[in-house]
Amino acid sequence: MKIGLDVLGGDYAPDSTINGAIEAQKVLQEGQRLVLIGDQQDTIERLKHAGADPDKFDYIHAPENISMHEHPTKAITQKPNSSIAKGFELLKNGEIDSFASAGNTGAMLVGAVFSVKAIPGVLRPAIATNVPKIKSGYGILLDVGANADCKPEMLSQFATLGSLYMQYIYGVETPKVGLLNIGEEEEKGNNLTISTYPLLQQNKKINFIGNTEGRDLFTDAADVYVCDGFTGNVVLKLAESFYVVTLKKGMKDDFFDRFNYERYGGSPILGVNAPVIIGHGISTPEAIKNMVLLSKDMIESQIIDKIRSAFN
Amino acid sequence: MKIGLDVLGGDYAPDSTINGAIEAQKVLQEGQRLVLIGDQQDTIERLKHAGADPDKFDYIHAPENISMHEHPTKAITQKPNSSIAKGFELLKNGEIDSFASAGNTGAMLVGAVFSVKAIPGVLRPAIATNVPKIKSGYGILLDVGANADCKPEMLSQFATLGSLYMQYIYGVETPKVGLLNIGEEEEKGNNLTISTYPLLQQNKKINFIGNTEGRDLFTDAADVYVCDGFTGNVVLKLAESFYVVTLKKGMKDDFFDRFNYERYGGSPILGVNAPVIIGHGISTPEAIKNMVLLSKDMIESQIIDKIRSAFN
Repeated sequence: MKIGLDVLGGDYAPDSTINGAIEAQKVLQEGQRLVLIGDQQDTIERLKHAGADPDKFDYIHAPENISMHEHPTKAITQKPNSSIAKGFELLKNGEIDSFASAGNTGAMLVGAVFSVKAIPGVLRPAIATNVPKIKSGYGILLDVGANADCKPEMLSQFATLGSLYMQYIYGVETPKVGLLNIGEEEEKGNNLTISTYPLLQQNKKINFIGNTEGRDLFTDAADVYVCDGFTGNVVLKLAESFYVVTLKKGMKDDFFDRFNYERYGGSPILGVNAPVIIGHGISTPEAIKNMVLLSKDMIESQIIDKIRSAFN
Repeated sequence: MKIGLDVLGGDYAPDSTINGAIEAQKVLQEGQRLVLIGDQQDTIERLKHAGADPDKFDYIHAPENISMHEHPTKAITQKPNSSIAKGFELLKNGEIDSFASAGNTGAMLVGAVFSVKAIPGVLRPAIATNVPKIKSGYGILLDVGANADCKPEMLSQFATLGSLYMQYIYGVETPKVGLLNIGEEEEKGNNLTISTYPLLQQNKKINFIGNTEGRDLFTDAADVYVCDGFTGNVVLKLAESFYVVTLKKGMKDDFFDRFNYERYGGSPILGVNAPVIIGHGISTPEAIKNMVLLSKDMIESQIIDKIRSAFN
């Protein structure tokens, strides 16, 4: 197993990525190799400096970086030696089994769709994010930004993608799927959710429990919350800001702690032909470590094969 | 000045509405009369029982109630003696100057649009809600549910409506208007927000400061956040659920306190020909009191005339 990690992606890279890689490597087992994609010489020196053994890692030299504000498509095509472009080239060629980066989200999305491509039958891949439940554990919300405008068929597919992820990554047997909406009754909603409701009812690959509302997101109402990428992104950023407020006010609580992206590492792009994970721009070594471990889980669980079978 | 209050609306009515009316009446001045719309005899008895002087109030007998789960349009037309239908009849005829209810939101919206109607030039009225700012005070968010699907022109009008409300009710001289979106750059967003951006730039009645994101909602980034009613409703209910969590966990904080709808009383329907306020279903006497005082502010400020002039 070869786990690809972009060493240059993220606001605190390469320090945070390399330190995170060192921590992740300690818990990886025989045959689970971390492939560090970035400036090879610099990476090796930093590993040595941190007291880590460079022989425990594999390397791909990709000295260029795609910054946070570059145009995704342009950057991917014009910077073939960037860590993100290189990562997807390796992923496409099967030289790595997963690719994770805390760099430019748009470039990660474009790179994934252009290189390993959407799984046949999947209309549009989606980005899923963890949402903490008040009692314990996590649900997921998707899409949180890959598709600002959605069609009902896409939302129904997101439900399938999210269910498989909850099942094979979080071990939830029959994940409850809720449509994020503005009323509980079937007839409530905007044009998109009203048209999506019957599709979710007919979708035999999921356990649809009906409409859910903003107030249900952190409850046990559902395990998978489905929405368009615009709504999901607004919700995600709003929830993050709440978490930041509780941090600033020094409020310690297990529920609030679970908002911390460091705990789960990153957000998968679901519906493409390989495990791809996007980390938070401000990823710390702890976040990078958990992003690597989530990559491993996605490879081990064969989630991609499960999704392929579901859409076959 | 005659301030109309639905005595029967709300989960805890008529106890909470009558107790709220008693408290509000104590701070009203000469010539500011509260018109209690509900079962007249029952209301008078309850006022007496609570030690209040029934002569200090006016009454309109409307013994029927529209419950929370009734179909708005059906209920309004089939129950002419309901407190909400009666309230709007009085409002239309100029017998009261404002109407407030913590009852069925849909019936309030339908009633407002069917009776006093939208102000000429206003495409669709919107419901505005307060959003607390972390530092101090409030911004507003609209639409939070009157229009699940919106056109760009509607959002531009919401911006104007919200600005006038912030100016004349909250005394903010030149309210900053932000478009709730999923990226800061002009080209970011879904079809709706991308098309709305230039309209907001061209709207001379507002101070447009650009795109804002979910994370900006509680900051000083803007005073008026504009979005479609689907997004706004999801955001509103999510924010409320956060507040409930902080309450349950016993977290006391001025910022969280300001989420409490009791403090500001209710949400105005902006863009109709009279002040109409919708209260939270679980309104307490404190909330009812503040809803009455907000009604008074809306009458005194002549906000309806200001809106009419702006759309003339």
